[in-house]
Amino acid sequence: MTANSSIQTFLDDLASERPTPGGGGAAAVSGAIGAALVSMVANLTIGKKNYEAVSDDLKAVNAKAEALRAELIRAIDEDVIAFDSVMGAYGLPRASDEEKALRTAAIQAALKEATLAPLRAVKACFEVIRLSAEVAEKGNLNVISDAGVAVLAANAGLRSAALNVFINAKSIKDRDFAEKQLAEVNALLDEAAKTTESVYQTVRAKIGS
Amino acid sequence: MTANSSIQTFLDDLASERPTPGGGGAAAVSGAIGAALVSMVANLTIGKKNYEAVSDDLKAVNAKAEALRAELIRAIDEDVIAFDSVMGAYGLPRASDEEKALRTAAIQAALKEATLAPLRAVKACFEVIRLSAEVAEKGNLNVISDAGVAVLAANAGLRSAALNVFINAKSIKDRDFAEKQLAEVNALLDEAAKTTESVYQTVRAKIGS
Repeated sequence: MTANSSIQTFLDDLASERPTPGGGGAAAVSGAIGAALVSMVANLTIGKKNYEAVSDDLKAVNAKAEALRAELIRAIDEDVIAFDSVMGAYGLPRASDEEKALRTAAIQAALKEATLAPLRAVKACFEVIRLSAEVAEKGNLNVISDAGVAVLAANAGLRSAALNVFINAKSIKDRDFAEKQLAEVNALLDEAAKTTESVYQTVRAKIGS
Repeated sequence: MTANSSIQTFLDDLASERPTPGGGGAAAVSGAIGAALVSMVANLTIGKKNYEAVSDDLKAVNAKAEALRAELIRAIDEDVIAFDSVMGAYGLPRASDEEKALRTAAIQAALKEATLAPLRAVKACFEVIRLSAEVAEKGNLNVISDAGVAVLAANAGLRSAALNVFINAKSIKDRDFAEKQLAEVNALLDEAAKTTESVYQTVRAKIGS
C-alpha cells in the first residue's frame, strides 16, 4: 500500500519519470490531508470547556472524517490500478478483427472504471469540504486555522481528481455515460468552490485577518 | 525528520489531538507535492520527441523544483520548531518584573520567527506556482493534467501557510515588522490566485474539457 511509503519516497516517486503515482494519487493524498485536519479540529474541540454543546456533533463529524480518510487512502492505490488497467487494455493484440473488437471493449471498460475511480475521489473530497465547513463553524477557535487548511487541501484534491475524470471521460464512446459523470463533476466543482471560499473567509474572520 | 514518516503515520499524527503536525506541516507537504509534480512533468518532457526545443528550459525548471521540494520538506519540521518555540516562551516564569520582561521578549522573538517560517513556505509555494505555469505551457501534453494538479497543490499550500502568517503576525507588538510581512503575503495571495486559475484553465483547455 502506498500509504506505507514514507513521505519522502512518495514525493520521489511522484517526481520521477514513472507515470504513477501521479496527479490522481496526489489528489487522493490532498483529500486525505483535509480529512485528517477535520479530525484534528474535532479532536481538539470534543470535551473542551465552552464546547460541550457541540461535542456530540463533532464526534459524528470525526467518525465521518475518519471513514473518508480511509477511503481516500485506498483511492491512492485505486488510481494506480485504474491507470494500469487502461494501459494494459491499450496493449492488447489487434491482429484480427476479433482481437480488435475485444481490445476496444477492454479499453472502453477500463476507461469507464478510470472515470468512476477519480469521481469517487471527487465525491469523497466534497464530503470533506462539507465537514470542514462544520468544524470551521463549531470548532475550537484555537485551532480554527486548521479548518481552513482542511478545506483548501480537500478542494485542491477535488479539482485535481476532476482533471482525471475529464481526461478519461473524453475517450469514452458511451456518451450518455460520460456526460452523466461530467455533469456530476461540474456541479460538485462549482459547489465546492463556493463552500471553500466561504470557509476560508470564515476562518480568516475568526483569526482576525 | 517528518519526511521519513509513512504517509499513514503522518496522517494519523495530523488527525490526533497533538497540536503538531498541523496546518503548517500540511501546507508544506502540499507545496512539496506541487514541486514533485512539476518535476514529474519536466522529467516526462525532457528529451522526448517534439519537445526538443523546450528540453533545456525544463531541465532548469526541474532543478528549481527539486530545490523547492527540499526546502518545503524542511519546512514541515520548521513549523514544529517554530510552534514549540512560541509555546516554550509562553511557558516561561513570570514571578518578577524582570522575568515578565524576559518572557515578553522571548514570546515576541518566537512570534517573529513563527511569522517568518510560514512566510518562507508561502514564497516557496509561490515559486512552485510559477514553475507549474511554465510546465503547463511547455510540458508533454500526455501528462499536462499533472501540471494542473501541481498548481492546485502549491496554491493550497500557499493559502494554508498564509493563515499561519496571519495568526502569528497578529500578536506581534512591532507593528512595522508585522505589517511588512502581511503586505507581502497579501500580494502573493492575490498573484497566486490569478496564476492558479489561469494555469487550471490552460490545462482544462489542453485536455479538451
